[in-house]
Order: sequence, then C-alpha cells, then structure tokens
Amino acid sequence: MIDLISDTATRPSPEMRRAMAEAPVGDEQLREDPTVNRLQEMVAELTGKEAALFLPSGTMCNAIGIKVHTNPGDKIVLERWAHPYTSEAGGPGLLAGVMTALIEGERGVFTPEQVEEAVQPQGGFHSAPATLLCLENTHNRGGGKVWPLETFQAVAETAHRLGMKVHLDGARLLNAVVASGIPAKVWSQYVDTVWIDLSKGLGCPIGAVLAGDRETMDRARRYKHMFGGAMRQAGIIAAAGVYALEHNVERLAEDHANAKLLAAGLSEIPGIAINPAEVETNIVFFDVSGTGRSPQELYHGLIERGVRMGSPTATRWRAVTHLDVSRADIERAVEVMEAVVTGRG
Amino acid sequence: MIDLISDTATRPSPEMRRAMAEAPVGDEQLREDPTVNRLQEMVAELTGKEAALFLPSGTMCNAIGIKVHTNPGDKIVLERWAHPYTSEAGGPGLLAGVMTALIEGERGVFTPEQVEEAVQPQGGFHSAPATLLCLENTHNRGGGKVWPLETFQAVAETAHRLGMKVHLDGARLLNAVVASGIPAKVWSQYVDTVWIDLSKGLGCPIGAVLAGDRETMDRARRYKHMFGGAMRQAGIIAAAGVYALEHNVERLAEDHANAKLLAAGLSEIPGIAINPAEVETNIVFFDVSGTGRSPQELYHGLIERGVRMGSPTATRWRAVTHLDVSRADIERAVEVMEAVVTGRG
Amino acid sequence: MIDLISDTATRPSPEMRRAMAEAPVGDEQLREDPTVNRLQEMVAELTGKEAALFLPSGTMCNAIGIKVHTNPGDKIVLERWAHPYTSEAGGPGLLAGVMTALIEGERGVFTPEQVEEAVQPQGGFHSAPATLLCLENTHNRGGGKVWPLETFQAVAETAHRLGMKVHLDGARLLNAVVASGIPAKVWSQYVDTVWIDLSKGLGCPIGAVLAGDRETMDRARRYKHMFGGAMRQAGIIAAAGVYALEHNVERLAEDHANAKLLAAGLSEIPGIAINPAEVETNIVFFDVSGTGRSPQELYHGLIERGVRMGSPTATRWRAVTHLDVSRADIERAVEVMEAVVTGRG
Amino acid sequence: MIDLISDTATRPSPEMRRAMAEAPVGDEQLREDPTVNRLQEMVAELTGKEAALFLPSGTMCNAIGIKVHTNPGDKIVLERWAHPYTSEAGGPGLLAGVMTALIEGERGVFTPEQVEEAVQPQGGFHSAPATLLCLENTHNRGGGKVWPLETFQAVAETAHRLGMKVHLDGARLLNAVVASGIPAKVWSQYVDTVWIDLSKGLGCPIGAVLAGDRETMDRARRYKHMFGGAMRQAGIIAAAGVYALEHNVERLAEDHANAKLLAAGLSEIPGIAINPAEVETNIVFFDVSGTGRSPQELYHGLIERGVRMGSPTATRWRAVTHLDVSRADIERAVEVMEAVVTGRG
Repeated sequence: MIDLISDTATRPSPEMRRAMAEAPVGDEQLREDPTVNRLQEMVAELTGKEAALFLPSGTMCNAIGIKVHTNPGDKIVLERWAHPYTSEAGGPGLLAGVMTALIEGERGVFTPEQVEEAVQPQGGFHSAPATLLCLENTHNRGGGKVWPLETFQAVAETAHRLGMKVHLDGARLLNAVVASGIPAKVWSQYVDTVWIDLSKGLGCPIGAVLAGDRETMDRARRYKHMFGGAMRQAGIIAAAGVYALEHNVERLAEDHANAKLLAAGLSEIPGIAINPAEVETNIVFFDVSGTGRSPQELYHGLIERGVRMGSPTATRWRAVTHLDVSRADIERAVEVMEAVVTGRG
Repeated sequence: MIDLISDTATRPSPEMRRAMAEAPVGDEQLREDPTVNRLQEMVAELTGKEAALFLPSGTMCNAIGIKVHTNPGDKIVLERWAHPYTSEAGGPGLLAGVMTALIEGERGVFTPEQVEEAVQPQGGFHSAPATLLCLENTHNRGGGKVWPLETFQAVAETAHRLGMKVHLDGARLLNAVVASGIPAKVWSQYVDTVWIDLSKGLGCPIGAVLAGDRETMDRARRYKHMFGGAMRQAGIIAAAGVYALEHNVERLAEDHANAKLLAAGLSEIPGIAINPAEVETNIVFFDVSGTGRSPQELYHGLIERGVRMGSPTATRWRAVTHLDVSRADIERAVEVMEAVVTGRG
Repeated sequence: MIDLISDTATRPSPEMRRAMAEAPVGDEQLREDPTVNRLQEMVAELTGKEAALFLPSGTMCNAIGIKVHTNPGDKIVLERWAHPYTSEAGGPGLLAGVMTALIEGERGVFTPEQVEEAVQPQGGFHSAPATLLCLENTHNRGGGKVWPLETFQAVAETAHRLGMKVHLDGARLLNAVVASGIPAKVWSQYVDTVWIDLSKGLGCPIGAVLAGDRETMDRARRYKHMFGGAMRQAGIIAAAGVYALEHNVERLAEDHANAKLLAAGLSEIPGIAINPAEVETNIVFFDVSGTGRSPQELYHGLIERGVRMGSPTATRWRAVTHLDVSRADIERAVEVMEAVVTGRG
Repeated sequence: MIDLISDTATRPSPEMRRAMAEAPVGDEQLREDPTVNRLQEMVAELTGKEAALFLPSGTMCNAIGIKVHTNPGDKIVLERWAHPYTSEAGGPGLLAGVMTALIEGERGVFTPEQVEEAVQPQGGFHSAPATLLCLENTHNRGGGKVWPLETFQAVAETAHRLGMKVHLDGARLLNAVVASGIPAKVWSQYVDTVWIDLSKGLGCPIGAVLAGDRETMDRARRYKHMFGGAMRQAGIIAAAGVYALEHNVERLAEDHANAKLLAAGLSEIPGIAINPAEVETNIVFFDVSGTGRSPQELYHGLIERGVRMGSPTATRWRAVTHLDVSRADIERAVEVMEAVVTGRG
C-alpha cells in the first residue's frame, strides 16, 4: 500500500529500530533516562530554548502549552482550523477552561490586525482576558503553508504587546525549516513555547518534544505527570527521536519534491482541481468533485489498486508525502488516480 | 441626570418598592417562598415552559443555561458579540469547560448555513461535539435588533437537527415581543431554555428568571445552589418582578418610541452617523467620530449638562431608553448633544 | 408555626422591610449603589479588612473564597463536615478544581497537628499542593461550637507557616462574637478572607458579605460577576444588612439563652439524649432514638402541634433558635415535644 | 547498583528489547497497530472485560478511569493514601472536577461500613453525589497488602448498591494474583474498570492497560486522545507488554520470596522496626528511627555501597523487589544495611 493518508503513517526503519533496541535507559520521572535527557537537550538546542520536555504526543504538547500560559476563564486566540480547536477532543475547554477566539486565516496565515480584532473585547472584569495566541507552522489545513517570516514575527509581537504569550504548534516546523531555509531557532525566538513532532515527517513511532524557558518547562512537567504523560524507561522511544534528528531532517526536501510531483501529476487529470503553486511542503490539497465520480468510488478504487489518500465522504482531499513514500510511489499513485478517475486501465 | 447608559439604570418606582415591602415570603431553598413561586409560575406561563427558576442575575441564567446543556470538552455555537462570550468573565470556559464556535452575525442575526459551518468539524472522537446554540433576542450589540421569526425558527431547527440544544438569552426578549407583536411563548417554543431579565426594561432592581422543561430546571436548581444563587426570603425581590410583569411590559413601547425619537434627533446633528431605520426597540447605536470632537470631550460635556450616554474611550456609542427616561428627557438629551457637538449653547 | 428548623427561617421585620423600601440605590456593578457601598464598608470595618463584597449568598462567599486562594489541581484542607464539603453541591470540585483533604474534628474543632497531617503528602510535582485551610466558626455540625481562640489562632498560623491561605466561613461568626465576647476583628485577623451571613441570625432575607484585602477582593469581584452574583440596584437588600448590623447583633444573646433553655427543657424529657453543657450559641443537637418513637412520628406530631424541628428520617436532630422565636415559643416547643414523646396531652 | 527504590526501576531485558525491535506496527489512532491490538485483547481476556485500552502510564489509567465514571461536582471515595489522591498532581480535581471523600484504611484495606460512612451526606441537591469508589490491590502504601477477597467483594458491592461505579488501580494487581492465587478475572468481576501496569513488576519500559466494558472504553478513548495519550506506532512499546504477559507474570513469586527474605534479614538488624509477617508481595516497609542514625546518613551510606532504598528525609522506609534484583542482591543489600547501621565492615 502506498499510504498518503498522513505523514503519521511512517513506520520505523531498521536503523531506527536498532537505535531503539540499543538505547541506554533509566527512569525518566527521576530525570535519570540518559536518552530522554539527550533528546530534550537536542530540541532545546534546536529551538534555542532553555529546556525541553519529551511527551508521548503532539496533542499533549498543545494541551500543556495552552495550560501553562492560561488560567480558567481566559480566552485563547487561534486560527479557525487550528489543531487544538478542531482535533483535540475539546481539550482546551476541559483541561484549561478557556474559550476560543477564532481567526479566519488565509491558508492558516493571518495578520496582526486580525489578532487585534480577535482579542476584543478586552479590559475590565466583564471580559475574558486573551492570554495566549496559538500559531501553527507549517499549517496543516492551510495545505502545508509556510508562514512568511515577517508576518509570523508581526503577529507574535502584536500578541506580546497585547499581553499574550505565544505558543507554536510545530508538528511540521521542520518542514517549514527545510522549505524556507529559516532555522527552527529563528522561528522559535518569537514564541514562548514551541514543539516538534517526532511521529510525522521524522518517521518515529511515538512522541513529541515541547520547549520553552526553564520556569515554564518546570510547570509543564507537573502537567505532564497529571495528564498521564510521565513514563519510565522512555529512552526506548526517545532514541528514535535522537536518530531522526540526526538522519531524517534534511531529507524532508525529498518529501516536498514528491508533493510537488504529485500535485503536478494530479493537475493533469481531468476533473481534479488543484493549484500546484500552493504546494510548499509535504501536503497536497485538491478537489475531486469535478471528476464525475463520488468520493467513495474514488477512495475505494484507489485502495483496490494499492493507494490510500483522501476520504470516502468528502470531495476536498488531502495527500501527504513522507519517509515511506518514494518518487516511484508518487508516479504510481498518479497513474492509479488517473486510471480510477478516467476508468481506463 | 438623564441616564441613557443602559436600561439597567432603572430604579424601582414607589409602587414597586411597596410591592417589595409587602411581599409574603418564605425560604425559597425549601420552595416555601410564595412570591418566588408565583413569579416562577408567571414566567413559565409567559414562555410556555413547564418550569422556571428565579436567579439573582441574567449572567447566572446564561451560566446555568450553558451548563445544563453541555459537558466539559464540548463546544457551543454563538454570535461573536454574544453576551456569554463578551461579557461574562470567561464563565463558559471555567464553569462549563466548553470552547466557543463563533459566528459573525449581521446585527446579531445569522443564518442556518452559518450554524452548519460553525459546528465543523463534527464526528469522531477527535473533534469537540457542538452541543448548544445560543441565541439572543433582541440582540444588544446588534442595536436592539429583533430577529426575523422565520430566521429564528430556521436556525433553531437547524441546531436541533444537528443534535444541539438551543438556549435563548432573553435579556430583552420582552422588547422583541412588544416591538414585533410576537408573544414570548412563540419565540420560546423553538428553544430549550429561555430567560427574561427583570432588571432591564422591566425596571426591577435585581433578578432574572430562567425557564425550560421540568427535568432541565431540576438540574438547573442544583447549579443555582452550587454557583451561589440560592437565596432565602427572595420573595422580597421577586415581588418586584411580579409587579413589573403586571405593569411594565406594554409600556416598553414608549421606550421604543423614545429610542426612535432620539435616533431621529441625533441624525440631524452634524457629524453624527446613524441610521434611524435600524432602531427597532430601545437601543440606539451611532458613531461620533465625524463630530470633530474626542469621545472624552463629548462624554464629559454631556455629563456636565446632565446627560449620560456613550463612552469616553470609543467612538461607537450606545444609548438605551428605559422606564426612567421620558419623552421630554429625550428631547433634552438631543438638545444637549447638539450643544456639545456644535459648541453652541 | 414555631419554626426551629434553621435560623435561615427568619422573615424580615416591619422595620427591616421599611429600611429596604426606603433604601437609596444605584447600579452596584458600576459601584454606584450607596447602600451596597455602605454595607461593604461596615463589614470591612467589622472584620478589620481592607475591602468587602456583597454577595447573594453565603455559598457564593465560600465558592469565591475557595476560588481566589487556589488553582485547579490544588487541594484544600477542611473539616469533614464543613459546609463547602457537605452542602455546596460539589462546588469546590467543579468551580475550583480542588481535591478535599478532610480532618475529623471534635465538634468542628481540630488541632495544628491535624492540619500538618492532613496536608501530607506535600512537595514535588507528584502531590497536589495544599493551598487553603477552611475554618468555620461557630461550627454548625459541631452544634454551634465556638472555637477556643488560641486553637483557632494556632491552626491558622500553622496553615500560614505551611504556605496556605486561610478562609473563615463566618455564617454564624457573630454568634461566636456575642457568645465569646471576642470581636469579629480579632477572629478575622488570623485569616485571609472571612464572611458573615445576613440571612441567618441577623434576620435578613438575602445576602452575605465577604471581606479580605483589596487585591483579593478585586479578584473576587470578577468571580462574583462570572458566577452570576453581580446584581443591579442591590441596595434594596443590602439595606436589610445595614439595618441588621445596627439592630440585630447584640440580641443574638437572646437566641443563645433560648437555645440553652430549649436544651435544658429537652434534657428532662425521657428518651431524649442531650448534653446541655455543649450548647454555646443558637444550635441544639439531640438524639431522639431513645424515645421509642420513630423520627417520622415525632416530626409530624410536632408539626401538627405547630412546632417544626428535626427531621422525619434521622434520629440526630437539630433545633436552631433565632429572631422569630421568643422565650415563650421555646417553652411551648418543649411542652409540645414532651407531649408528643410521652403521648400525653 | 542494587536498586530497591521501586519496581519501576526495571530495565527491559535483551529478549524484551528484541520483541520491541521486531514488533509489527501501524497507526494505533486508526486502530491499525496489530501489536497494540493484541496487547489490548490479552488484557481484556486477562481481566474478563469486553475491551481494553493501551495508555502511556498508570496515572493516565487512573485519570481516565475517574473521568469516565464521574461528572464535575461529584465526589469520589478513596483511601487516604490512594495514588490518585497522593501522587497524581491533583488530577482528579483539575481533570474530573471531583472532591475526594477519604477513608482511613488498615494497610489500604477498609470495610463496607467505612464506604457507607464516607459517602455521607448523600441525597438532595445540596450534597455532592458520590459516584465512584477507587480501590487499589495490592495497596502500595499498605505495604503491598493483598485485599482479602471477601472484603474486596463486599466493599465493591456496597459501592454498587449505593449507586457508585468501582475503579481498580491494578498497578500491582498481578502481584496480588500471584500471591493469592486468585485470578485477575476474579478480582475484576467486582469492578467496572481495572488496569494493570506494564512498567512495574512486569519489567516493561512504558505503559499500562485499562479495561472495562465496550461503551466505557469508547468514552475512555476520547479522553486518551484529549489528555495526549494517543500515539502512533505504539506497537513498539506494546510489544514489551505482550512479551511480559507471556514471560514475566509467574516469576513475580520470586520477587515476593525476595521481599520476604529482605524483611527477615532487616528484622535481625538492631534498631530496624519491621514486621516480616506483613510482607505479602514485593513491598517492604520498615522504620529506621531506632538505628541511631539519620535517614540521610543511612541513605548515603547505602548508596556508597551500591544499594538504593528508602529516603534521605524520612524514617519510614520502603524497599521494593523486582525483576532486576536477584536473591543474591537481596542478601547483599541486607549485609550492606547491617554494615551501615552498625558501622562495622
């Protein structure tokens, strides 16, 4: 199966499995796991933050990132399709007790003016104070878009000026880094907390790492424990992260090239609506409603021919390239799609 | 002082004070206060609901209305300037643990399509379920606008079809009733909970009454106690509500006429931007930025001459008519505004 | 009906009703209600605190007192039968997100050693920090017991030494003041927040007043609004509080004398177990299991003869004296009880 | 280092590491990880429950177990030293919004009467409903005590009769199973949810598995995602669990024998207070205050000689035997303790 459903689909390579099997470990709750400690130092260094914290998932990074910067009764500002709002089971409400001030972005990107508008009303004890702005780079629902650095900086500075903290969902930050050539440290300097996901483009089975200043990370550690993210000999899985940071970052460029190739291929299939120029990293969005075939028909036609992407229920489809998908796989996926759409072959 | 700052400014009349002073009372926590019981029955009857619950404020009506229909981790759908979002200190987040799915209305009114869009994404365990739609009629920030009944019905039915409950913030429902001629019972039949405020146009000092079906009101009673709204001989203040429902409803038409008079008068003052046709009930919004005078200057100029309205910090101003403002007061207020704006007199 | 069910049963006297009917009022949310302001100043003065806040109920005083001193994830220390634990609908959990560290007191009173034990375990990020000790004086379930001042001081100082704040539930603090001769100010100096109830022995229909330092009261005001306790022309009911503080404090001594008289009378009825020496204020606990009659039989027998006390389902009974019960009423209540128990008369 | 600090100290064996390195994996969020699925089936079978859910920690099992059975405003009943109360960072308050009704057990064990007392007061809308009883078997703070089965059954049945659910913290349930000969399925039949820890006596690096009926586990899955416990190719670590259930259960008997050996050895050292008869499983509690040496002196003396147990700050010490500690290690640990206490050798 050529699986383009998500970059979370990657399976650990033999080398990564070996790194896990041989990892030195200890009790991470006692801060005695050398591999966890090493991974945390690597991510602190990568992001230019004082400290980092290994967690079992990116969702926990967002949950804790939101928690450490807010109090119940606050509101947080985030894009209308941001992951904590759309895909974390309502966690910000239950865990942090915050309302959500939503911004309609343009492919996930928005302006300082929109931040200023979104926090209204402010002041007095009647309104909920806006205490956190959440950013996402690259933006998933925005089609893997990389924020323009100056806009990114401007919205972060606006938030700080308005008394908010800034949290960066970096599930695909390294895709942004590779695509833009702008180091993680540069993106991170504008925000108070940032995290990277290990289980997406980096190809690890489990985990994400949150970074920030030491005081914030000390408080984060308490929530890690409370939420159930404190593990024991977690070096086993942290070892995959160490391996990935050493071997799998630069190669994200291949995923980006493959995504562009996929977009170009799809654009030539009749009835598929896509703008290849919008593909900046490893995510490709396109619309299949012009094909004359139902999503279900297309989805299952692809599955039968060994390709998984999109959805059986919607016409706006997503395909994501990653470590387990080669250039040849992409060429094959385009052929298969063409065959399914045209009914030929 | 001619106080147009809000219809919450009304002071109880001598007759209302007498009604309070003579009210038979008991312990309302034991359901033994006859005046509270009578008021609750009146509001249940007025709204066509099985039961009603006397509460110390409209904010508590919203807090409990949201709480009884949701669980932490849900999201609620409401207009971007709805009172629970803008003016209840972040209560929905802290008290109910819900995120807020915001709709940009047109003067507070929105469409079924906007409701359908706002609940997205739905389904699966990743998204927060949308379990409640909040409506407000008349809509304060919408300039006292009365919802078109068919739109009101359509959004409520859409919400129900999508599995949501509907809560109506009726802080000024009786203004809508008087302006539209559509009974409270008709508006209420489309919603699961509804409340009316006693301390706005009705002229009472304290209180609001929430109504719904019996099972929901039984659960509401528990939150009334938990949030601190369970009182003792509350018949003292409920008596004002009984009096107001008997004497102060029909006369809201005077407030509406006065608001139209005010709007017409203001529209003739140079530099004041206002659309008198938008004034449907007792709220008048207008913009003073074209006057060439700062909000602070205008605000204090009015105060010095015995008129209070608007704000010393913003140019979009609000004036609200009510029981303690006569037609002559309105004429005087327009004269004073003209004098302050033009510098004459 | 001679109603000894609770001191919340008092109905406002004609003089108190007149004070309410004539009260000057304003919008208390704008801090413009002169009577509310006056009442708050009186309670601040009474308790020796910087500021005070009028609230619709004692339960809201406890809810806010707990909220302003804690964060979700903390634990609070309180007596096993303290009101916030037994009788506030689980509010500390829902509103403040705190666990409860319980102490078994001796008639509501406990020792510094018990506080030290109750906070365990402390320290590290695994345990919930104990951040608040709640006290109650007099203690309701403890039979209206007045804390020995030195014990009161010692437990408060222990709590402070351990890094906790101290909140005093003063629903019946004025009973303690009158019974002990120790001013409210002296009790209050050991605690961070304190409140008095207006609707118990003081005879008002509604309300309670929370006091503390100015910064804490400013934060309390936000929760007052969020929880729905912000009213409008609340001077109407605050006026009763002003009247009561001026007229109804010293006379609590009569309630205490009546309670002793009741206890003495009951102690002579065969089968009623009571220790009159334990009656210090206006609460009398006694056991009816030795009477040979069921609680239901006794309860309804009393009701038929115009006396209400105790419970139809339990044998540990409570009677509470108050403003609406005279010495003659007590004598009559004892006679009636004797008649019901013995079946004579 | 002979590490007796906890049975969480175990490091994965070469065979377990190999099992992890070779595990077939998939995306567990899509329920496509075959090893996770297999582990969940094994635990469902072991406990006789319909379904099971792999989680990153035992703390998350408790957090979710409490969450699925309660609503904010409820209270939960648990032993005064139960893990969710003492060691989960206040999670029950923050995550579930529940107060804690505490029972003083005898080595962690308590009676049906204590449950009945602990839920008081119940009924009406004033009290917080008790909706969950938490049990722990073996009980850590109780010295690894195994509940008498009939008492266990009786308290669970009492809880159910009172309308509560029952949750079993089975961090060391398999120790209880091996020590008592009573299968996990038998213990589990009395409770609604149960979990076993993989990272304690079983010797895995990470993880725990919660089991219950299908409907409850479906709701649990939502909280797994919300709290951040949803991983991707989690088969890597689940494989250790599969291996451990196949190889490391019966051998817990060795840990128990070693614990008894340790207890017997310690009991002969002058100044160490211990009752070897109380050692039923792998936990040994003893008191070092009679040794004439400070905890710090003892602790560091042991560390210097390659043994870790106890605490530098308290005199009640705990030692825990496990997979990485042999009979010879125990003999050595006793010798070292004797040398440190007596100052000889």
